[in-house]
Amino acid sequence: MKMDNLYIPVADGLEMVEKALQNIAEVDIPILAALLEYAVQSTGKKIRPAFTLLCGKFYNYNLDKLIPMSVGVELLHVATLVHDDIIDESELRRGKPTVKYAWGENAALLLGDYLFAQAAKSVATTGNQRVIELFAQTLMTISGGELAQINVLFDAKRAREHYYEWIAAKTACLFSTATESGAVLSDAPEEVIQALKNYGYYFGMAFQVIDDILDFIGKEAELGKPVGSDLMEGAVTLPTIIYAESNPEHDILEQIIDKKDRTEVAETMEKIRKSSALDKCMDIARDFSRKAASQLEILPDNEYRNILSGLVDLMLERKK
Amino acid sequence: MKMDNLYIPVADGLEMVEKALQNIAEVDIPILAALLEYAVQSTGKKIRPAFTLLCGKFYNYNLDKLIPMSVGVELLHVATLVHDDIIDESELRRGKPTVKYAWGENAALLLGDYLFAQAAKSVATTGNQRVIELFAQTLMTISGGELAQINVLFDAKRAREHYYEWIAAKTACLFSTATESGAVLSDAPEEVIQALKNYGYYFGMAFQVIDDILDFIGKEAELGKPVGSDLMEGAVTLPTIIYAESNPEHDILEQIIDKKDRTEVAETMEKIRKSSALDKCMDIARDFSRKAASQLEILPDNEYRNILSGLVDLMLERKK
Repeated sequence: MKMDNLYIPVADGLEMVEKALQNIAEVDIPILAALLEYAVQSTGKKIRPAFTLLCGKFYNYNLDKLIPMSVGVELLHVATLVHDDIIDESELRRGKPTVKYAWGENAALLLGDYLFAQAAKSVATTGNQRVIELFAQTLMTISGGELAQINVLFDAKRAREHYYEWIAAKTACLFSTATESGAVLSDAPEEVIQALKNYGYYFGMAFQVIDDILDFIGKEAELGKPVGSDLMEGAVTLPTIIYAESNPEHDILEQIIDKKDRTEVAETMEKIRKSSALDKCMDIARDFSRKAASQLEILPDNEYRNILSGLVDLMLERKK
Repeated sequence: MKMDNLYIPVADGLEMVEKALQNIAEVDIPILAALLEYAVQSTGKKIRPAFTLLCGKFYNYNLDKLIPMSVGVELLHVATLVHDDIIDESELRRGKPTVKYAWGENAALLLGDYLFAQAAKSVATTGNQRVIELFAQTLMTISGGELAQINVLFDAKRAREHYYEWIAAKTACLFSTATESGAVLSDAPEEVIQALKNYGYYFGMAFQVIDDILDFIGKEAELGKPVGSDLMEGAVTLPTIIYAESNPEHDILEQIIDKKDRTEVAETMEKIRKSSALDKCMDIARDFSRKAASQLEILPDNEYRNILSGLVDLMLERKK
């Protein structure tokens, strides 16, 4: 199986999502139209809307509701990236200059706000109060989770637990909203909704752990950003935490938080790469993936379930 | 009549809005709790939620729906102010340090996002799709309108028209959402909904013109920010536009946009104050107010209508 298998059964829906995203850029305000076109072009692989659609396949595949929900999920994702790039002062995103870098901070701030609103409006057109509230709660979780990272007093003993809370809010939450909403809008039974919600959550946790591993061993051309970005920005992710747990004599966490110079970051990266930390991270990603897969047992045994099951393994092998 | 009259018939509802706003600050993330408490404390006069409640008085005064809507309207207002203060680099808001100034830019950015989401969630609990979509559209209008101000090529001939578009998006839109949603949620007939929506719009237009006049003649202690803030920040508002129209030989607009030094700003302010520009602005504010008042004719002739009518005159006389 390939990652593309996710997209095949929902190709009709994804095409409509794509068109809806293009239409959003058709507005009267020139700068807004240009910004929206730029942002929509960079929406990447569309894995989240594909999940919403695929999770809608098990019961009533109601595109009238699934399309606006998928559009909302993707726009929310794009909006959070646009605001993240302000916070992280990132210059590149998927190999392209960030909105903040290309258009300035005020434009990026307002574009993000506009995209949140456009996402909310799209979700509102489903007329389904449960997913409308879920959508709003997702943005509360994401922004609240990012806020919790500001000025946090770093506690080495709580580092791993803290990391899991952080990635649950920033990544797993939106994956679980994507899968849960697909189930809700296709009138799935409540136990299926919960299973697909949990599948999305654990998938998202594994996805982020892999992301954080790739920041150590990926290739810049594939990642679309420099390797080692996290350490350079002072972000303590799982590989570093696991290395620090095994090497308590090394003041690595303090060093990273103090944002030392590039040479020291390169040395620290090399130490982590040579240690067993990355293997241990892969074990943790596999563990989350297994939890995701185990959710699928109560689902109807069909091609869609096979795809969801296969995706879990593929995601572990991804290189970008 | 006093401004307080707006609040008397809806005192029960406003107290519930106040409590709901306090409850929002009760979250587990310490920095978020502190930020929310700070933001909620500075929500000011609550004129917008009062409008929603008062416009809900004409028919079915259904507090189960009107309260969450009023909370959403106020939170949206606060969220836009928090983000505006990042863009304008303002240090003071209502006499208190802005969130950006007191807590830093990243905290202000994320707090604004969180407040948008909390506002959307509150509005979602009304279960009324029309106001949920109206709410999302309002944030699109506000952020799109602010974006339209960025890098705009200034055209003196279009200055007045451009100003009206700008204040419609940044101020009148939220007032009309406040009044329209109150009418919708109280099951008012469609013509009443339209009348109250238009009332809010014209009230908001007059409100912003008065705001822009006060930036020239108000007292710092009453405004909670320095007089002349607009000119200092390079914002071209109606008094300046009208002065420029009558004095085409003076390159005042270019001067302001180039953000000249404080002495020159003080001189320009003095020239505008001594001209007839501010009187002409008052005429325009009165004109918007009359349009607001004329909307009320089709409403039931009762105390609530009298209050809405009286507010229009009071607003023209406000000093802060």
